[in-house]
Amino acid sequence: MTRKRLFYLGPEGTFTHQAAMEAAERLRPSLGGDADGFDLIALPDVPAIMDAVQSGRGWGVIAWENNVEGYVVPNLDALIDAADIAGFARVRVDVTFDAFAVAGDDPIARAAADGDADPVVVSAHPHGLAQCRRFIAEHGLRAVPASSNAAACRDLEPGRVAFGPRICGELYGLDTLAERVQDFEGAHTEFLVLARRDDVRDLSRRFRDAGTGEFETIITLIPLVTGPGVLANMLDVMRDAGLNMTSFMSRPIKGTDGTYSFIDTLDAAPWEPRFRDVLETLAIHGIWLKTLAVYPRRDRPSPPVDAWRLPEGGIHLDAMRIERDWEHADTVGRELLW
Amino acid sequence: MTRKRLFYLGPEGTFTHQAAMEAAERLRPSLGGDADGFDLIALPDVPAIMDAVQSGRGWGVIAWENNVEGYVVPNLDALIDAADIAGFARVRVDVTFDAFAVAGDDPIARAAADGDADPVVVSAHPHGLAQCRRFIAEHGLRAVPASSNAAACRDLEPGRVAFGPRICGELYGLDTLAERVQDFEGAHTEFLVLARRDDVRDLSRRFRDAGTGEFETIITLIPLVTGPGVLANMLDVMRDAGLNMTSFMSRPIKGTDGTYSFIDTLDAAPWEPRFRDVLETLAIHGIWLKTLAVYPRRDRPSPPVDAWRLPEGGIHLDAMRIERDWEHADTVGRELLW
Repeated sequence: MTRKRLFYLGPEGTFTHQAAMEAAERLRPSLGGDADGFDLIALPDVPAIMDAVQSGRGWGVIAWENNVEGYVVPNLDALIDAADIAGFARVRVDVTFDAFAVAGDDPIARAAADGDADPVVVSAHPHGLAQCRRFIAEHGLRAVPASSNAAACRDLEPGRVAFGPRICGELYGLDTLAERVQDFEGAHTEFLVLARRDDVRDLSRRFRDAGTGEFETIITLIPLVTGPGVLANMLDVMRDAGLNMTSFMSRPIKGTDGTYSFIDTLDAAPWEPRFRDVLETLAIHGIWLKTLAVYPRRDRPSPPVDAWRLPEGGIHLDAMRIERDWEHADTVGRELLW
Repeated sequence: MTRKRLFYLGPEGTFTHQAAMEAAERLRPSLGGDADGFDLIALPDVPAIMDAVQSGRGWGVIAWENNVEGYVVPNLDALIDAADIAGFARVRVDVTFDAFAVAGDDPIARAAADGDADPVVVSAHPHGLAQCRRFIAEHGLRAVPASSNAAACRDLEPGRVAFGPRICGELYGLDTLAERVQDFEGAHTEFLVLARRDDVRDLSRRFRDAGTGEFETIITLIPLVTGPGVLANMLDVMRDAGLNMTSFMSRPIKGTDGTYSFIDTLDAAPWEPRFRDVLETLAIHGIWLKTLAVYPRRDRPSPPVDAWRLPEGGIHLDAMRIERDWEHADTVGRELLW
């Protein structure tokens, strides 16, 4: 039997590598008779991953969205502009950091025992260092930036510490000095697994045959007319079909200022009749369309609106109702800047 | 006369510092009788800048949007949730890198003359290094990451090279070995200048008194109802008022999954009657509102739609019209994944 190649952003031990491992585990049943497992292959950048998928050498994993940083826009742009690539699975990885040392070494304990020692060096990507400030301060470490967290772990020297994704410990034979040393809990990154478009259609059919009932879809829309109301008219069509949207954004086409595409994530599959009708209606009204991804629906939290924690300031109905009282008029004006 | 403090993300020599210098130049006339100039003050992170503005110690500059990477989402979230801060000016900085050495030193020329020399070390933030790959390869440099481009320039040692924003040369007394060494032209970052909300209202009035006729506004909207159509209904109100939108995105409130806010940039000022009417109508329909920024309208490119470079693949009206031909039906299915 052959094995399916799964390409990810290297070096080994990145969060994308962790996502690729989880994808390999989850997608094994979808391989059917095509392959008996996955070979995970690190590539130096996302364009190389897109090339590998486009040329049919295997599947790819790219970062899509982080709940703190938002969309990974260069990857979004790359997928929008890919000739023959789409996503068929979505994988979430918690962004947590462990503190590592080479096997048998504990430089932090040694420095603590020897009060006069120089500060221990800790290495990670500047973003990783910024996310573990409390641990650095607690142990009086000296932060030295690395090109990536995975590289910091791979190149770790005795007497030093590195921060990296959990999987780096086993990968590089390191000791884990402390787990989950990041300042804040709850950060996570979502990844898309990519294949050629005909493969994605086959895979969607396999998911359906295997009992998956609900899907999500990411589409790109480019209205080939402009002006006020284009977006509203487009969304009216989706509203009237009862399609539920979970994410929506505008984005300049290929980063060219003054051009507009819209990226929309919907709780529906494009082969559902109501969704097909929407796509046909939009096309007839001069909108360029492309489906970027279709994948089994994720469980997502759905807190009731009255439990949402509204931001500081702002105004809502009550403030507006009492605006004619002089004392509130100024609040409304300040929050709306009119 | 006093001087107005303008806070930016340090260390000295960052792109935010460059934006602060440009803002100081442009905003001098707006100081009126309040101050006779600016003191630019570096702070270690954006929360510190927000605190300084909120407590009335001065104005602040934060990165808002990059044309390649998209919105700077943590800064967006911070402004949405700030109790009493808004933007009143928007400043663009081209993202270009110069190659620097300490004064009188040219390690690249020296290494070229001595064919056997070890590779010259070049230092920058990993993102900076990734944006100058061609220059690194051409000169056979060895890339060593730094915590920021500005820090790489500040800490530069003889015999080494650093990449950084143009202003680092003069700031740190460095020689510029080569200008604009980044691989790609055209990247730029936009920054917002922030003040307390009452100050922003005063400043907007000064801009109007000084003859500024057109403004842009960034608003946040949180519909306190959910379900299909909420967004469409909201945009219908704006369409019917003839408001033109130039950027639109959804974002979880404070990064909490399953909650929704919308951030909208409009070509209008909130004190215009048609815009006021829209805000009142939206509030009456249960939408939480906050104006994040009002600033003089920027000149923006507006290429005609027929000059837009559409992405690879996708379908539009012509493909849909001929879908009933068998050979095109498959193209439509592949692009839409139905």
